[in-house]
Amino acid sequence: MTIELSCPVPISNHETVQMAHGAGGRLSQDLMRRIFMPHLHNIFLDLLDDQAKLELPHGRVAFTTDTYVVSPIFFPGGTIGELAVNGTVNDLAAGGAIPKYLSAGFVLEEGFSLPELDRVVASMAGAARKAGVQIVTGDTKVVEKGQCDKVFINTSGIGVVREGVAVSCRNLQPGDAVILSGNVGDHGMAIMTSREGLSFQSRISSDCAALNGMIADVLDAVPSIHAMRDPTRGGVAATLNELALASSVGIAIDEAAIPVRPDVRGACELLGIDPMHVANEGKLVVVVQASEAEKVLEAMHSSEHGRDAVRIGSVVRDHPGMVIMRTVFGTRRIVDLPLGEQLPRIC
Amino acid sequence: MTIELSCPVPISNHETVQMAHGAGGRLSQDLMRRIFMPHLHNIFLDLLDDQAKLELPHGRVAFTTDTYVVSPIFFPGGTIGELAVNGTVNDLAAGGAIPKYLSAGFVLEEGFSLPELDRVVASMAGAARKAGVQIVTGDTKVVEKGQCDKVFINTSGIGVVREGVAVSCRNLQPGDAVILSGNVGDHGMAIMTSREGLSFQSRISSDCAALNGMIADVLDAVPSIHAMRDPTRGGVAATLNELALASSVGIAIDEAAIPVRPDVRGACELLGIDPMHVANEGKLVVVVQASEAEKVLEAMHSSEHGRDAVRIGSVVRDHPGMVIMRTVFGTRRIVDLPLGEQLPRIC
Repeated sequence: MTIELSCPVPISNHETVQMAHGAGGRLSQDLMRRIFMPHLHNIFLDLLDDQAKLELPHGRVAFTTDTYVVSPIFFPGGTIGELAVNGTVNDLAAGGAIPKYLSAGFVLEEGFSLPELDRVVASMAGAARKAGVQIVTGDTKVVEKGQCDKVFINTSGIGVVREGVAVSCRNLQPGDAVILSGNVGDHGMAIMTSREGLSFQSRISSDCAALNGMIADVLDAVPSIHAMRDPTRGGVAATLNELALASSVGIAIDEAAIPVRPDVRGACELLGIDPMHVANEGKLVVVVQASEAEKVLEAMHSSEHGRDAVRIGSVVRDHPGMVIMRTVFGTRRIVDLPLGEQLPRIC
Repeated sequence: MTIELSCPVPISNHETVQMAHGAGGRLSQDLMRRIFMPHLHNIFLDLLDDQAKLELPHGRVAFTTDTYVVSPIFFPGGTIGELAVNGTVNDLAAGGAIPKYLSAGFVLEEGFSLPELDRVVASMAGAARKAGVQIVTGDTKVVEKGQCDKVFINTSGIGVVREGVAVSCRNLQPGDAVILSGNVGDHGMAIMTSREGLSFQSRISSDCAALNGMIADVLDAVPSIHAMRDPTRGGVAATLNELALASSVGIAIDEAAIPVRPDVRGACELLGIDPMHVANEGKLVVVVQASEAEKVLEAMHSSEHGRDAVRIGSVVRDHPGMVIMRTVFGTRRIVDLPLGEQLPRIC
């Protein structure tokens, strides 16, 4: 991202993205000046170099990336910009790192509304402030109308791994408690119902939120957490399956314990989707030695994002690599990964 | 990027990208196993976590991002995958950092050929090996057919800033020498001529290359380099303008000194494009105290990517913020930024 701030007056009054906004010339600079800098300016971006130079506290560095292509870009409870910040913050935090710095790479469609882009960038800046991270480097590309859908955003993130914390998806031990921080399926169903134009009495809102504050509280209380993960694409089902496979253990969960909002459950039934397969953007799965489970729940309950946290099951020696649910009818069923695509462009 | 390696047999024989490849379920894992892991596997990716944890040598960390949307994705001299690695490596190296780790975020179009994706990923792996960097974390999203053009790739990069090196676009001093590492315009004209189906006797090839080796040699020889930048989008013209503006100095260059391949010059004339505005992907602009210019040129000449390096001009006190060229006709003209878009989707 290279910018020039010496020319005080915007040179254009375009209301939509032009191909030249991505050409590295005057209109690129104009876009920086009109939209990116007012929201995102900070000492790193202000230095005008092609890369940010950062002083990190001593320790291991965590590094992650995600591209966000959610449609629609504005949805109940969030925007593609908030999602892009919170999703990457959560990937770092769930890895036991303190999120510090993000990059932002935009692909814009020619003809995309500049006021809408402004709203997206403003929401990113707000989410970054709330999460306590800085967006320190960026890039913008423009493609011809019809070659992307409005805006795609990549964020990559750098964090510092907390000392004494060694969470990993390979650390699950038989006997461990499996804890979930709240209701499942809110994000995915907020997107789906807003897209399909379905109307529900209570409008479903995304749970999109940065969890680094809650995760810090949990790790302060119990540094010996075995595994943490935010159950996004593929839902809690995909997360539990990945953990079970990576650690070669079984996971047994209790359907009755899994919190689902009634309107989310209703929307899932209507659309024929298992809420366990639906993406969340503000939830956390924690696996911890059973004797520490209460302390984890206590830490979660005191956070606004973990008020409904519950223990949903246990790690078991049986059926390694598989997740088995005891249903509300008392039967048992395999909680599998979805094979196909039920919820495209959810994040 | 979350993956599962326990199932040895691919579950599908799709030859094109399916929406479900991006859903976080079984087909996502299949894509990992069939295409990404065989080329990119390394200890970080193999750990299956959502973020890589890296030991960095002590020092400041450089962080940069770029999204690549080049069309066509295969062009003479490179692929979108090589471009995505080399471009980000060069942004780190030109900032005085030793490039270490990259992330890779893919947006794939439903229906995109999996053999072509395989070729792209293989070329990324090759470029990373050649540049001595590791791709340690990644992400894949799939959008509906017609919502992106084949494949877009974001790479973000982390490097360690070399001690004693303080390059910055704000460091230019009157009297400094301006050095260019070789021919201008090769990358942009390779893309344009392959896209337009223009035929030239000698096929123009992109200069796409990682410059971190050459830059290390230059910094070993002259640690006191004032500024370095790889002149990509907007070409050498944009780079020199940005440097002049950031440092509030003028830059005077000599048209006769600027190396342009005859076929590139011919293509530029045919298309009505100034070669100074054309993107390069394997070139470097260096600004250094005049007394050190010979040492810089010597270091460049001994690198395969700097054999044709020349001094093209000087930093001056006059016309701050502007770049003035003495033309081959002996006149002077302003080298301005391109206003519009002459070369869409060049990187």
